[in-house]
Amino acid sequence: MTHKIAILGASGYTGAELIRLLAGHPAYEIVALGAYSKAGQRMADVFPHLRHLDLPALVSFDQIDFGAIDLCFCALPHKTSQEVIRELPAGLKIVDLSADFRLRDPQAYETWYGNPHMAREMQREAVYGLTEFYRAEIAKARLVAGTGCNAATGQFALRPLISAGVIDLDDIILDLKCGVSGAGRSLKENLLHAELSEGTNAYAVGGTHRHLGEFDQEFSKLAGRDVKVQFTPHLIPANRGILATAYVKGDPQKIYNAFSEAYQSEPFLQVLPFGETPSTHHVRGSNFCHIGVTGERLTGRAIVVAALDNLTKGSSGQALQNANLMLGEEETSGLMGVPVFP
Amino acid sequence: MTHKIAILGASGYTGAELIRLLAGHPAYEIVALGAYSKAGQRMADVFPHLRHLDLPALVSFDQIDFGAIDLCFCALPHKTSQEVIRELPAGLKIVDLSADFRLRDPQAYETWYGNPHMAREMQREAVYGLTEFYRAEIAKARLVAGTGCNAATGQFALRPLISAGVIDLDDIILDLKCGVSGAGRSLKENLLHAELSEGTNAYAVGGTHRHLGEFDQEFSKLAGRDVKVQFTPHLIPANRGILATAYVKGDPQKIYNAFSEAYQSEPFLQVLPFGETPSTHHVRGSNFCHIGVTGERLTGRAIVVAALDNLTKGSSGQALQNANLMLGEEETSGLMGVPVFP
Amino acid sequence: MTHKIAILGASGYTGAELIRLLAGHPAYEIVALGAYSKAGQRMADVFPHLRHLDLPALVSFDQIDFGAIDLCFCALPHKTSQEVIRELPAGLKIVDLSADFRLRDPQAYETWYGNPHMAREMQREAVYGLTEFYRAEIAKARLVAGTGCNAATGQFALRPLISAGVIDLDDIILDLKCGVSGAGRSLKENLLHAELSEGTNAYAVGGTHRHLGEFDQEFSKLAGRDVKVQFTPHLIPANRGILATAYVKGDPQKIYNAFSEAYQSEPFLQVLPFGETPSTHHVRGSNFCHIGVTGERLTGRAIVVAALDNLTKGSSGQALQNANLMLGEEETSGLMGVPVFP
Amino acid sequence: MTHKIAILGASGYTGAELIRLLAGHPAYEIVALGAYSKAGQRMADVFPHLRHLDLPALVSFDQIDFGAIDLCFCALPHKTSQEVIRELPAGLKIVDLSADFRLRDPQAYETWYGNPHMAREMQREAVYGLTEFYRAEIAKARLVAGTGCNAATGQFALRPLISAGVIDLDDIILDLKCGVSGAGRSLKENLLHAELSEGTNAYAVGGTHRHLGEFDQEFSKLAGRDVKVQFTPHLIPANRGILATAYVKGDPQKIYNAFSEAYQSEPFLQVLPFGETPSTHHVRGSNFCHIGVTGERLTGRAIVVAALDNLTKGSSGQALQNANLMLGEEETSGLMGVPVFP
Repeated sequence: MTHKIAILGASGYTGAELIRLLAGHPAYEIVALGAYSKAGQRMADVFPHLRHLDLPALVSFDQIDFGAIDLCFCALPHKTSQEVIRELPAGLKIVDLSADFRLRDPQAYETWYGNPHMAREMQREAVYGLTEFYRAEIAKARLVAGTGCNAATGQFALRPLISAGVIDLDDIILDLKCGVSGAGRSLKENLLHAELSEGTNAYAVGGTHRHLGEFDQEFSKLAGRDVKVQFTPHLIPANRGILATAYVKGDPQKIYNAFSEAYQSEPFLQVLPFGETPSTHHVRGSNFCHIGVTGERLTGRAIVVAALDNLTKGSSGQALQNANLMLGEEETSGLMGVPVFP
Repeated sequence: MTHKIAILGASGYTGAELIRLLAGHPAYEIVALGAYSKAGQRMADVFPHLRHLDLPALVSFDQIDFGAIDLCFCALPHKTSQEVIRELPAGLKIVDLSADFRLRDPQAYETWYGNPHMAREMQREAVYGLTEFYRAEIAKARLVAGTGCNAATGQFALRPLISAGVIDLDDIILDLKCGVSGAGRSLKENLLHAELSEGTNAYAVGGTHRHLGEFDQEFSKLAGRDVKVQFTPHLIPANRGILATAYVKGDPQKIYNAFSEAYQSEPFLQVLPFGETPSTHHVRGSNFCHIGVTGERLTGRAIVVAALDNLTKGSSGQALQNANLMLGEEETSGLMGVPVFP
Repeated sequence: MTHKIAILGASGYTGAELIRLLAGHPAYEIVALGAYSKAGQRMADVFPHLRHLDLPALVSFDQIDFGAIDLCFCALPHKTSQEVIRELPAGLKIVDLSADFRLRDPQAYETWYGNPHMAREMQREAVYGLTEFYRAEIAKARLVAGTGCNAATGQFALRPLISAGVIDLDDIILDLKCGVSGAGRSLKENLLHAELSEGTNAYAVGGTHRHLGEFDQEFSKLAGRDVKVQFTPHLIPANRGILATAYVKGDPQKIYNAFSEAYQSEPFLQVLPFGETPSTHHVRGSNFCHIGVTGERLTGRAIVVAALDNLTKGSSGQALQNANLMLGEEETSGLMGVPVFP
Repeated sequence: MTHKIAILGASGYTGAELIRLLAGHPAYEIVALGAYSKAGQRMADVFPHLRHLDLPALVSFDQIDFGAIDLCFCALPHKTSQEVIRELPAGLKIVDLSADFRLRDPQAYETWYGNPHMAREMQREAVYGLTEFYRAEIAKARLVAGTGCNAATGQFALRPLISAGVIDLDDIILDLKCGVSGAGRSLKENLLHAELSEGTNAYAVGGTHRHLGEFDQEFSKLAGRDVKVQFTPHLIPANRGILATAYVKGDPQKIYNAFSEAYQSEPFLQVLPFGETPSTHHVRGSNFCHIGVTGERLTGRAIVVAALDNLTKGSSGQALQNANLMLGEEETSGLMGVPVFP
């Protein structure tokens, strides 16, 4: 049986990545592609790498017959997403890739995003889309909120440790190195090749990055108490990939065991042998996340490094993984593509 | 039915690319991976991006039972390849990715490669592996010689024009821009990141690049007379991708029509609308080749630009496409992966 | 004696490059920096790499006392430049880095730039700023028009050959590989890191690039007859650098001799030994241009490759070289900085 | 008066960087360039970007008349350096860029480098070359030991805080992002463009990097007690630049004040306004180090980010700064070159 799929916001990077993955999926058919300013254009012009695919043209949202759709991916900007989603048919299954439905608490949402939420009922109902930890809820959900790409990386590097109670919850530092596609196809000076290549810098320093809202919500829920991590992202001259270096306090071997146990049956979460460290090179274009644990010369400390592709496992691949669950398909279907190296 | 596959030279980039593609192929099983200096190592250590695959360890060639193999890919260095291949069982189907069996004329081989050929019978028998132009022969072949990656790009940009007689055969210039993975995983000073990134240079200037042997052989055969193109490759700071800019003399519209007709049924050769030019960004990691034709302000001249991924369509993807024909599989099987952008 | 310098358009890349070079010049003092939208900002915020310099803040042009200025660099967008320059005091020495005063013929200007020129008297008076070929005129000029960066590279690769009459004037092909900073600090999708890194493409194909106006003017003047070259630029993933590969017909040794003679006393134009080819890596951040000549296996053809840094020798370095002549300083003063490698 | 300079190990990146800087210095003359395997070659062939300079050819060390030399830079590999330096004339001033004389304690040296030191007298006598903190000693020294490039960056980010007693000495984390030229011009698989571009990874994780020997020595000396930091370097796809992100516990404002006071008269150490963060882009090719301090949402914590160019301020620029002091020249002479951006 073929499921009918729509993508709203198909002219951005996560939209294109969804199409790339869906093109290799045996059970899905893309029947509608929605966009704003690029409505009316052909995908071959917006994304020439999709030229060979037989895709519908980009249309404005009101031209889409949502009654004929089984599942809709929303790859829209934050805030726009909630405005659009609240108008979609009540029964439609939705995977949202924006930040709009990640936080359950309306106040937390307002604090991090600066405006009151405009679809609070749906905010309450939405399921957090970190597949490996919300499988059952996602399979039954109508609306799944894809996680932030940084938030996904940090959680893969920390959740098993918080659950297992093997680290000091008051002293967690997350230093992230992020590829540029996470910022989307937006025209900003700091995203120009001339400004970005051959160098690096920190941004959103000091606890101001919005993905902290997700860390706070998820880690506190997991620990049953307030957990606030320190999180500093850095922009590196690479298009894809996030490397999270987590500095934690605890016994390295217990920490390693917590990962081994938590992830032993996970198809996409690969735990490296103790003492090895992953690289974003080795997950590029794939839905895999590599995780390494090492000890430290200073007793009682460990370093956890996690690597994933922000557009795939951190966003569109995760979204497809969730859609697979929601539509009763094999969870890994369309997602086993091997990383592209070099 | 599953075909048993061996790869000799699995520790190089084309070997790894073969594994990436074969992992997504429904009808093939990799049963042996051969290597020299890295024999004894696990693929997860040699290429961590293949970590999640259940692959045989690297072994030396004498440990492989070739009687149990249906088809063997040889991704070995030039000259080594002929020494190895002449010792393989007579009935074994082989796709060779080296330069050793590309040239039919022993003298031409010696001129370009500097040594007498050591397996002349097989050299005579081998079929040139440019799939789109040798399909029937490849389907029946025992030994197929994969083309040079530059040679493939240049031929996709020129063969239909030579066949159709629409260009001046005595004035063809091929200016290529080549990603660095074409040089393999070899330790050379000029391949270091510090030497290569953020700049470009020509190399093998003046008609000395070995792929000219292929151009001479193929274009002359096609034209029924001697054809000698001028070919200058340039190294650009990119891992994958070759862009061929061909300067030809002829009527641009006739040139465009020659491509439209020749490639209209080709699944991997995509002809862009007249006046558009392709980019290597849009074929990365895929088996597609994009081709564009534009006119020139100077009457009677045209520019043809072709873009492909040297490791895929230029090498390992082409090899799999040939193997599909040799083993009676669908030609496109395992090769329809969408380019990875950005 | 210290000359007082103003820069209009100091918030762009060529403006910043001028400041970098002027900071190391013993005889110049920057007394005014003009900008449009960034007027009011400090240079340390606009270009943090200039943070340690004691620079005037950016101001709007009407805040500058041009009576106190000895020489004004205009690094403004095309068309804006002529509007601004025609209002400057009549006696002020000006080096313009835009395209506005490069073409002598009003009709040619209109053809290439699409609008009638708004300062025709000054257009007639302006001296073309290719220093090595217009020294005497530049020394006496009031208004010098900096060349296009592609135009400079192509001319360094061809002028001595046209002058010496050693090549076929009807069959010249210029294939350029251009770093991205030539496009300026402008917010365009194709200049984003995610769109540009790790790939290449041709642009302005078919004889449509505006720098052809300069080639036509200069080469025809030099030859005493119409000369029209074929010129195709390509964007490569590098911030600085242009590599021009020129395909010409003539005797390689005579061609080499023409360069040796023409450039033997030139401090910035370095002719490599016959058969060697230059690289943009080796001129980065400097005012040097490296030029190599090789023969071809096809008799009567040669390849000339020229490499320079588009922001330095191709633009701001050239501008300073011209200013030195105009102000009676040593021509090389402030310009002998060694290329930055790696 | 012109000082006569020799460079041993001139065929590596730090050697080339020394030549670049010395070429712009009014008081130095390079009279000898020593090398091992490349002895006999011309610098124009080893480093074509130095082509225009009138440099002596590379010679083996025994061909150098050290009696005619005023100061010798040693840019040799670790261990080789001590073997060479102990044989140099007793009165010769030496700036060593290797790791051999950085550690005062023979036991610490052996622990970190794995072999007993072969020139213990000189090890004891050598002065640590972090100019801003050892000026007086350096001015009088015969042998100055250039610091590790990571060690320099980390110390610029932490020394004033340890001296001022404003941070918790038992909880200091240094996360470094390092450009690839720090690894030198060595042929290693992980330094190839194809392996390195477009991705990042940690290395020497867990407290195993040799520069920790320098941190331990210097921070403990400064604090008057044992101080052991946690230090994790990461390789990023950039040729030049180190960004150090230091996570410290203390009052952000006091921390900022400690920097303001310590560095207020330093020409090369630029403290950014509170809350701003530096970028390696903005120090490229220069001897400047930019330092930023921000607070954290978690009370009592701060983040210090320092950026410098590993080849300049982290190595060859520092070496020249020290040589200036040793020879009685202005400390900043030849070092005020503006960073190259973009």
